[in-house]
Amino acid sequence: MTHAKTPTPYLDRIGGPADLRHLSIEALDALAGELRVEVIEAVARTGGHLGSSLGVVELTVALHAVFDTPRDKLIWDVGHQCYPHKVLTGRRDRMHTLRQEGGISGFTKRSESEFDPFGAAHSSTSISAALGFTVGRDMGQPTGDAIAVIGDGSISAGMAYEAMNNAGAEGRRMFVILNDNEMSIAPPVGAMSKYLSGLYGSPLGRVQQMAEGFEAALPGPLRDHARRARQMVTGVAGAQGTLFEELGFQYVGPIDGHDMTQLVTVLRAARARATGPVLIHCCTVKGKGYAPAERSADKYHGVGKFEVASGNQAKKRPNAPSYTKVFGEALAREAEADSRIFGITAAMPGGTGMDIFSKAHPKRMFDVGIAEQHGVTFAAGLAASGLKPFCAIYSTFLQRGYDQVVHDVALQNLPVRFAIDRAGLVGADGATHAGAFDIGYLCALPNFTVMAAADEAELVHMVATAVAHDSGPIAFRYPRGEGEGVDLPAQGDVLEIGKGRILAEGADVAILSFGAHLGESRKAVALLAERGLSCTLADARFAKPLDRDLLHRLARNHRALITVEQGARGGFGAMVLHDLAGEGLLDGTLAIRTMTLPDRFIDQAAPDAMYADAGLTATDIAATALQAVGERVLG
Amino acid sequence: MTHAKTPTPYLDRIGGPADLRHLSIEALDALAGELRVEVIEAVARTGGHLGSSLGVVELTVALHAVFDTPRDKLIWDVGHQCYPHKVLTGRRDRMHTLRQEGGISGFTKRSESEFDPFGAAHSSTSISAALGFTVGRDMGQPTGDAIAVIGDGSISAGMAYEAMNNAGAEGRRMFVILNDNEMSIAPPVGAMSKYLSGLYGSPLGRVQQMAEGFEAALPGPLRDHARRARQMVTGVAGAQGTLFEELGFQYVGPIDGHDMTQLVTVLRAARARATGPVLIHCCTVKGKGYAPAERSADKYHGVGKFEVASGNQAKKRPNAPSYTKVFGEALAREAEADSRIFGITAAMPGGTGMDIFSKAHPKRMFDVGIAEQHGVTFAAGLAASGLKPFCAIYSTFLQRGYDQVVHDVALQNLPVRFAIDRAGLVGADGATHAGAFDIGYLCALPNFTVMAAADEAELVHMVATAVAHDSGPIAFRYPRGEGEGVDLPAQGDVLEIGKGRILAEGADVAILSFGAHLGESRKAVALLAERGLSCTLADARFAKPLDRDLLHRLARNHRALITVEQGARGGFGAMVLHDLAGEGLLDGTLAIRTMTLPDRFIDQAAPDAMYADAGLTATDIAATALQAVGERVLG
Repeated sequence: MTHAKTPTPYLDRIGGPADLRHLSIEALDALAGELRVEVIEAVARTGGHLGSSLGVVELTVALHAVFDTPRDKLIWDVGHQCYPHKVLTGRRDRMHTLRQEGGISGFTKRSESEFDPFGAAHSSTSISAALGFTVGRDMGQPTGDAIAVIGDGSISAGMAYEAMNNAGAEGRRMFVILNDNEMSIAPPVGAMSKYLSGLYGSPLGRVQQMAEGFEAALPGPLRDHARRARQMVTGVAGAQGTLFEELGFQYVGPIDGHDMTQLVTVLRAARARATGPVLIHCCTVKGKGYAPAERSADKYHGVGKFEVASGNQAKKRPNAPSYTKVFGEALAREAEADSRIFGITAAMPGGTGMDIFSKAHPKRMFDVGIAEQHGVTFAAGLAASGLKPFCAIYSTFLQRGYDQVVHDVALQNLPVRFAIDRAGLVGADGATHAGAFDIGYLCALPNFTVMAAADEAELVHMVATAVAHDSGPIAFRYPRGEGEGVDLPAQGDVLEIGKGRILAEGADVAILSFGAHLGESRKAVALLAERGLSCTLADARFAKPLDRDLLHRLARNHRALITVEQGARGGFGAMVLHDLAGEGLLDGTLAIRTMTLPDRFIDQAAPDAMYADAGLTATDIAATALQAVGERVLG
Repeated sequence: MTHAKTPTPYLDRIGGPADLRHLSIEALDALAGELRVEVIEAVARTGGHLGSSLGVVELTVALHAVFDTPRDKLIWDVGHQCYPHKVLTGRRDRMHTLRQEGGISGFTKRSESEFDPFGAAHSSTSISAALGFTVGRDMGQPTGDAIAVIGDGSISAGMAYEAMNNAGAEGRRMFVILNDNEMSIAPPVGAMSKYLSGLYGSPLGRVQQMAEGFEAALPGPLRDHARRARQMVTGVAGAQGTLFEELGFQYVGPIDGHDMTQLVTVLRAARARATGPVLIHCCTVKGKGYAPAERSADKYHGVGKFEVASGNQAKKRPNAPSYTKVFGEALAREAEADSRIFGITAAMPGGTGMDIFSKAHPKRMFDVGIAEQHGVTFAAGLAASGLKPFCAIYSTFLQRGYDQVVHDVALQNLPVRFAIDRAGLVGADGATHAGAFDIGYLCALPNFTVMAAADEAELVHMVATAVAHDSGPIAFRYPRGEGEGVDLPAQGDVLEIGKGRILAEGADVAILSFGAHLGESRKAVALLAERGLSCTLADARFAKPLDRDLLHRLARNHRALITVEQGARGGFGAMVLHDLAGEGLLDGTLAIRTMTLPDRFIDQAAPDAMYADAGLTATDIAATALQAVGERVLG
């Protein structure tokens, strides 16, 4: 995996974005070439989001060359295209720590650099944030222009539309760069995508190639070209507006996002002339300039370490199938016998295993795009019509559809099934992607059933249970990554709702695990046995409804009860505490402890290291149990 | 308030929507006139959402006359315009129970009627639900066409855009009726609103008056009229598309939503001809046909009981100013001394008190429209630029911006202030508007400070505290309705973060209240005193950070500790339990009880009656304390 570093004479002379502002367009272009190689070589060593970063190399150089960053606020939507930006803004020597423990984030992050004015990781926030900075400037704060860079997938989310609707009406000077590479993570879906393709591809589209003001600011030959292009595509003298213009933006484009001359010229013209909100439609190629990425179906959206010359990714041989794959296959199998099963994903078919389901049942999977709000209520509509929708959304992204979960699903008691992948801590994607809150925010809702899978076999059972549970909403959560390597059942069992299982019986301490920390809990039992303590180990399976019989037995028959979960306070442990308090089972001398994620965000590292940071190792569990019992013995 | 009932010969012959389908257009029009009077007279007796219901009387009649409800699924967005629909669908004789305890809901509700296929109350869900039913039909479920009726304010929310984006791409036959009355609750804001006005008002707008297919289906004179109108407004032979067409909808309109001939003709043509998604742009007048409503600024959006002849509303003389008003005035006062304070509302300037703030500081209030996702992140951008944004959103609607609260505010530790009105149970608006979950979903988030006001003077202090707290996000919640009648301070005190207050000292039981149930808690203390129990009464003020000194003292020095809050499980009581468990303070013989909202949705009634239903009266609190202590005494 070692590779001689390519010389980078231009890049070596760049201390920061200010150094770009004196360079010629030719020099900027040469610099961009070096920057592309630098990013490829860096990501080859660390893995990361390569494809989107390669698509914006020229754009990154042009933006920093034209705008006065960090006084001007450059806001990258999602942020996984920010690697060239990081290299140019003082983080070149830390690129080898990308997405690693103690290293720099894979996204933009305020605490990392003054050049990251607004961090990201979830999609479609940049225009809202840019409008905030814009109003701040207009109200006297010492900031310059705000520039949001947003992809064609991200701009199709409702939130981006809300922001454009508001920004268009406000009419304040700000910039939105639409980075149109015709794919988000997967190929994009939805009408907006078709619309954008139409703008770019069709000479009959209603496109205002260059707004008059900008056109006038262009140098002669470019101006003539722009004018001819506009007349060609609009067909009429009075140019027709685009969707963006109808929302109040001045629309410029489309321009070639890999052509430094076009980029710098148009950005300079925009910066010189804009009086209101401007959208610059910039077409780029994901994976640009690196053949293995351009050839790949996903354009190297997210890659592991790889060899630069061949593009071959180092493949870790997995010990067990991923939870995601187990879910996709189990659901596909269930759907063979039940024609009412349907799948929904919000632009993450691969990440959620819905691609597997879709391959088996192509007409029964709906990718709604980056649209969690709509996706959840669409699922509620499917359920109301009598179908069995499985809404597969990561824990962290389900937050985007929370009101729809409350108002459309829980309140109406509709049997929508939520398959919640990436529950708990997720590794390299860090704090922004942690699935920390779903247990709490779902258990609070009447009518809901909330499960968590202790291993991949349990996940298969929970898929079957969700298929069978047609009387109300049900959710099951499971972690990112590989399973435990247990045998998979050919067919899932339908679990009894609200019943846990006891895995070992003991007399002193009861450990009640909810979800995938059962393995650590089992190790803790072994550690405690070494200290002479006899433990009961139980898998709750359900946080709601609780297995109250099991819970009360554990509380009555042990000196200490420890709950363990991969989630924040207010979740499973809280439900246990509420129940035992109400039952009077905390009135006696039971020592109870709830082990949850701590009350702080946890930066990226390997998942095990993140859980160690969180105080949730087997040793932590055993120590907590010892302390609980010890206090009783001593006190 | 008594009023002779107007005779309704047509309406009296209608048993259900099927009876409309044999009537002539003239008879339908006459029926609509009677229906309007019926609704006015019903709401005069109960109060309710009158204005929007009056705007859709003709549309309601026409939809039920043309479509095959309940097989066809008619979905009213928000649902507060559904009173004429309720009268026509078997609920006429229960209209006098509207929004009252044990009565019919003020919104559509699945459990109430088969004619309500998808309940609502929160905005912008109807198109998603309609797409769900549409797919259900196409997959063999026994349902007909789905028709979403959505207002111009509601369609500007991102969720509606997501749904149109998806529905347009799916291309399935379904209907969206855009009910354009140029106002949601307040006059609408945003670029979409301007765009819609342009379509209606301007002969130069790019409007396709009638799509060719529909035009051909119209009877002769109407067809000629439509063609002339289209040519007039489009100006060119090849009609240009609207925003809706760009998203994949066939656009029809605008049509006069009070003209029964136009309505029935266009709906019949659409039903006969549509092969894909169709948007029918229907212009109506809020409050139509009732002079006092049409004259009023808010078009009688929500009214109390009133006299039909004059429109005079019965005014209850309030005992104390509302929390909303106290908040608006306190913030306006703080803003006089601090130019960095800004206000944000999501289309609820009156409901949140932001109208009061805006009157004093017109350039410092932003109404972002029905756009909670954008509103929260816009506020985060303002905070990142150095301003002090106060985001005033009801508890139930903040659910719509939850991911933005997590990802843009909490994770970046930005000092956005959340003023959370309508916390707890809200009365006539019922379960859909309950503010039950915010304590839990905010306390789970690192960096957050979470307060609740025990009375309106406390609210003034909390506004001052939020102004001063510039190191991270802070939220304060307060209920709907009148305050307790306490004296208001001229200037709020800045409270010490994470410090509660003790109001009475006792030896047996500690009652720790969080928020506006302090009054009930105080009454419970009096009841317990009658039973010989000496109580400590404390106001926690903060659910996060907890006042751990206070909490531990209460736990150590009392036989029982009762927490009280106006929220669901997983909130304040859960935070207390987690803390005491971790501290080992539950290991001894303290009897702890957490009083929260129960695990079920609570239907509309007076707030006191709802809290009685919830088991949260002073008597309930006292009984819980007695049981806690009694078990200890007996056990």
